[in-house]
Amino acid sequence: MQSERLKRFREYMEKNNLKVTVVIDPENQYYFTNFYAVVYSRPIITLIFLDRVEMIVPELEKLHAQEESFAEKIYTYGEVPYFHNDAYTILKKILLDISGRIGIEENRMPLSLFRAIFQKFSVIDVAPYIEKMRMIKDDEEIKLIKKAAYLADIGVKNSIEFAKEDITELEIDAAGNHAILREAGLKFPNFRLSLFAMSPSGSQRTPLPHVFSTSRKLRKGDIIIHSRQVSLNGYRAECERTFFLRPLKKEHEEIFQVMIEAQKIAEKNVKDGIKAGEIDLIARKIIEENGYAQYFPHRTGHGVGLSVHEPPYIRFDSDTILRENMVITIEPGIYIPQVGGFRHSDTLIVRKNRGEILTNISRDLDYLAR
Amino acid sequence: MQSERLKRFREYMEKNNLKVTVVIDPENQYYFTNFYAVVYSRPIITLIFLDRVEMIVPELEKLHAQEESFAEKIYTYGEVPYFHNDAYTILKKILLDISGRIGIEENRMPLSLFRAIFQKFSVIDVAPYIEKMRMIKDDEEIKLIKKAAYLADIGVKNSIEFAKEDITELEIDAAGNHAILREAGLKFPNFRLSLFAMSPSGSQRTPLPHVFSTSRKLRKGDIIIHSRQVSLNGYRAECERTFFLRPLKKEHEEIFQVMIEAQKIAEKNVKDGIKAGEIDLIARKIIEENGYAQYFPHRTGHGVGLSVHEPPYIRFDSDTILRENMVITIEPGIYIPQVGGFRHSDTLIVRKNRGEILTNISRDLDYLAR
Repeated sequence: MQSERLKRFREYMEKNNLKVTVVIDPENQYYFTNFYAVVYSRPIITLIFLDRVEMIVPELEKLHAQEESFAEKIYTYGEVPYFHNDAYTILKKILLDISGRIGIEENRMPLSLFRAIFQKFSVIDVAPYIEKMRMIKDDEEIKLIKKAAYLADIGVKNSIEFAKEDITELEIDAAGNHAILREAGLKFPNFRLSLFAMSPSGSQRTPLPHVFSTSRKLRKGDIIIHSRQVSLNGYRAECERTFFLRPLKKEHEEIFQVMIEAQKIAEKNVKDGIKAGEIDLIARKIIEENGYAQYFPHRTGHGVGLSVHEPPYIRFDSDTILRENMVITIEPGIYIPQVGGFRHSDTLIVRKNRGEILTNISRDLDYLAR
Repeated sequence: MQSERLKRFREYMEKNNLKVTVVIDPENQYYFTNFYAVVYSRPIITLIFLDRVEMIVPELEKLHAQEESFAEKIYTYGEVPYFHNDAYTILKKILLDISGRIGIEENRMPLSLFRAIFQKFSVIDVAPYIEKMRMIKDDEEIKLIKKAAYLADIGVKNSIEFAKEDITELEIDAAGNHAILREAGLKFPNFRLSLFAMSPSGSQRTPLPHVFSTSRKLRKGDIIIHSRQVSLNGYRAECERTFFLRPLKKEHEEIFQVMIEAQKIAEKNVKDGIKAGEIDLIARKIIEENGYAQYFPHRTGHGVGLSVHEPPYIRFDSDTILRENMVITIEPGIYIPQVGGFRHSDTLIVRKNRGEILTNISRDLDYLAR
């Protein structure tokens, strides 16, 4: 599938008269070459030419890049006495021969690198085009996202069922992580996984939509938002559930039902051809009608794929038309200071007449009040 | 301690005639303000003035920023119909009144942001100065790093002791993660933790210094490099051990002993006043004398703190003088394709006459061949 992507991207390059594109964003590099390094304190650079892909990597990544990347040529730089040079010197040398326009990602290009190398060239910003390409997932990407969603469900289920009084937020996350890893070992051997979870708990922390889990211990009557992304070979799915340790407060239950209602209606409206902004307004209307307008401070969802958040954004003012094989989350939330936060998130594939929901752990209080 | 940092940074600003510094690197923002968000798909910007700190955050982070940050003023931007604007418009407005130089981090400033806002100002690059400040850790930072090292040790021990035939790389990591979370809940309640581990195994994968763990299952005779960083409230410590499932191959044992020897000698030489490059050369010499020069493709270590890798780099050509309260790793490695990779990493604080080793899990074969 990468070859198909490269073909399309090269058509765009030809149309825009680009001799080469210098890709520095790790996700975009992976998207085109299948190579993803673990750390980036040493630069890694991909050059897409019309007839080949070249890559500059640190010597210690050479074998790794040879095994995993589709690059036709790999340059390496060393940091040891008998072999030392640096990535940017190699890049400069390669670009010396270029007479013509160069594609760069302006939102990823640090000013220092631009000044050191690209200032004297004619550049154009290719980031928006790559972003657009990445919005529509191909079959291989959808297969991975489905697997990731399957694992995310297992994680959420096990995390929720492990939670009880005196267990910490971090332990909730760990229980689900462990279940995912066990399942992945059985079902998806030799895949690369990465897990992210956060489980703010209590009336102080759940109103904060994004916080890291801490070693805070759960108490009776707590509300908890368990958020989880699983990535399988880089491709992500997200599942989030709000749940409760009994006794369940009346006020919590009421707000929870409004949130559920908003999520269900938004999910029901997902399909090819609808504006992203419209979905947001549909969810927002339910929450507003119930008097919580000012407690829903974020968009209804976002695209998901190689990035945690990526376009299309399901935001009231987005004119982006949802198209088949986009993958998005739907997650309207209500956050009331000192009371609690309420949010479920599901991952959906946009299909012709509907949204195919990939994450299926129960959304209802029967299961979620424990 | 942040106030001490701000004081010093403002002295630097005054000396360089800077009216304001615009900080966009998440770690640098945390360093100065104590605020760290979970995701950055919405911009977060910190402005350091001579007399105050201001912050621009998305509305959904407002409470979070109010609770955690030291900013005297917090601007928010919204993404909902009744409150929508954007971070850069707010930033532009704030900077309108600035007549004078602005500090920016040129290695973090995307070209697109520079073009949109800073191009017409006189800017200077403050990143190198912040980098230099961050190299020397204060008491609060060292306390956190020591706690992180304590937890890293627990993780490594539990991961190694969990490993056996048919267990996957990811499960090894998970076992240590779980032990860390349990211990953190008891010893360090209400801290924010994050865990990173990788455990390449076998003669194909251990020669790759940095790869994500997979669902590959361990086999008898395997070599495994278990690498682990723990961060506690953002501050990191690293511990890595190479270990074996018996039967232990003679060749593995020989190379292992060379690696151990190089690490021990390098660690013994760490102290205030020595050049970082010298430590690298000391480790390198042992490995070269034993005929493995070309199989040690990376620096001997790196600074660690808020970043996974940060200055000082323990690299042959570094003239940086190690100073008291720098925190570094020592991790010479040998990687032979088709044979195996061999690396231990410890975290050390540079002290007046020695390196204080913070990670203490056994380095020896008695323990590590299982």
